[in-house]
Amino acid sequence: MATEASQSAAAPAIVLVTPQLGENIGAAARAMMNCGLADLRLVAPRDGWPNLAAERAAVGALDLMPPVRVFDQLGAAIADLTMVYATTARDRQMVKPIVTARQAAVEARAHMAIGGKVGFVFGPERTGLLSDDVSLANKLVTVPLNPAFTSLNLGQAVLLIGYEWFQSGDETPASQLPLGGTVPATQAELQNFFAHLERELDACGFLRNEEARPHMIRNLRAMWQRAELTEQEVRTLHGMIKELTTLRAPRRKG
Amino acid sequence: MATEASQSAAAPAIVLVTPQLGENIGAAARAMMNCGLADLRLVAPRDGWPNLAAERAAVGALDLMPPVRVFDQLGAAIADLTMVYATTARDRQMVKPIVTARQAAVEARAHMAIGGKVGFVFGPERTGLLSDDVSLANKLVTVPLNPAFTSLNLGQAVLLIGYEWFQSGDETPASQLPLGGTVPATQAELQNFFAHLERELDACGFLRNEEARPHMIRNLRAMWQRAELTEQEVRTLHGMIKELTTLRAPRRKG
Repeated sequence: MATEASQSAAAPAIVLVTPQLGENIGAAARAMMNCGLADLRLVAPRDGWPNLAAERAAVGALDLMPPVRVFDQLGAAIADLTMVYATTARDRQMVKPIVTARQAAVEARAHMAIGGKVGFVFGPERTGLLSDDVSLANKLVTVPLNPAFTSLNLGQAVLLIGYEWFQSGDETPASQLPLGGTVPATQAELQNFFAHLERELDACGFLRNEEARPHMIRNLRAMWQRAELTEQEVRTLHGMIKELTTLRAPRRKG
Repeated sequence: MATEASQSAAAPAIVLVTPQLGENIGAAARAMMNCGLADLRLVAPRDGWPNLAAERAAVGALDLMPPVRVFDQLGAAIADLTMVYATTARDRQMVKPIVTARQAAVEARAHMAIGGKVGFVFGPERTGLLSDDVSLANKLVTVPLNPAFTSLNLGQAVLLIGYEWFQSGDETPASQLPLGGTVPATQAELQNFFAHLERELDACGFLRNEEARPHMIRNLRAMWQRAELTEQEVRTLHGMIKELTTLRAPRRKG
């Protein structure tokens, strides 16, 4: 938990301005914890704080983060921050940079690396942020989604911003192949299998068309190469070919 | 709507295996529509189909997509697909590629560009997919999130997969500065403003330290350069300096 807490200390704050429903505050807290965020600030929540509906919707997330802080005004809630992003879908007629959630995450991490403190501000359900609130922010952040269906609740909006934050610092390989107890097959093992297979395919007559034979062999090899076989799988294939040809032998004679 | 429908036709299918709660099916449909996905398939939904709770949670999304298709078995639900990703958090002891949601989106788009049909399969709430279901998939897809708090509901999981799908085809600039009716200031306009400002700063004595003067001027200029001023803002600044110096004049004399 010590690691967890220190990670969270170096993560952006989430500021919810006059949130209406406790359920949504709880969903936001849950989404924050999913994404390693733990600094939740509320500005004038409609139903006060603490809020039972929020506790319930947070499924334990609120217990894992430092106490939520409540403020009267957005200005006070963001006073210690050095870079504030306002989430908004609408054009505000302000000459203010609009960045995507992905870009904001990358920028936020860079800003924090030079000692800055970042926050993302979310407006109340349905109405969104007032322009006076937006005017306190350095930048606007937008989440590109289907323009024909933008209905997104507060918890989902926090999840998408948080998700991008988490990805910007995550090192999960884009693609990996877990091999269990085995290892990748060497080219020698593959070539040995090709030889076994092609010998049996010659014996049974599958490769009898001399003209087609070279490209049939190349295509068969390509299929196995593409599968990125393990040493164990090559052994399984050897066994499979062996058993298949053993079973077929009596029929050939018959 | 024609454009919408054709977009959706070229988007991956979402397959929910034995979903338990209608609310979650509805939340999944809503998330799909947020992300331009419209092919929803259910395998043996616990409470049958249609489902009133799902309709309610979908906030209109189900009405915007083709009819949901219901199947008895996962095999039938994915029969027409050519690339199937199983979403799973657990290690399955299968030698099967595991890709991130971001990587899956990029791969899916490439696969569809060569005529393939892609689907993402989600297991039931809490238990997740059975290993036999996973064995029908080409690859596993994982959403990197805080390992200390992975509680994610079905709608949120669909949202994150869909979000990555939408981003992989979205062309929103990472960062943009909307200028309203005005245009960026030219360097000539900036230099003219610097001259005006520095003349007044010399006049009032702010730049009286001859040694510090050059770097003070460079730092002031850097601040304005960084702001990416518009032509309108430069005019506003000229006006501001003019008024500030006019107001100060009587006091100087006084």
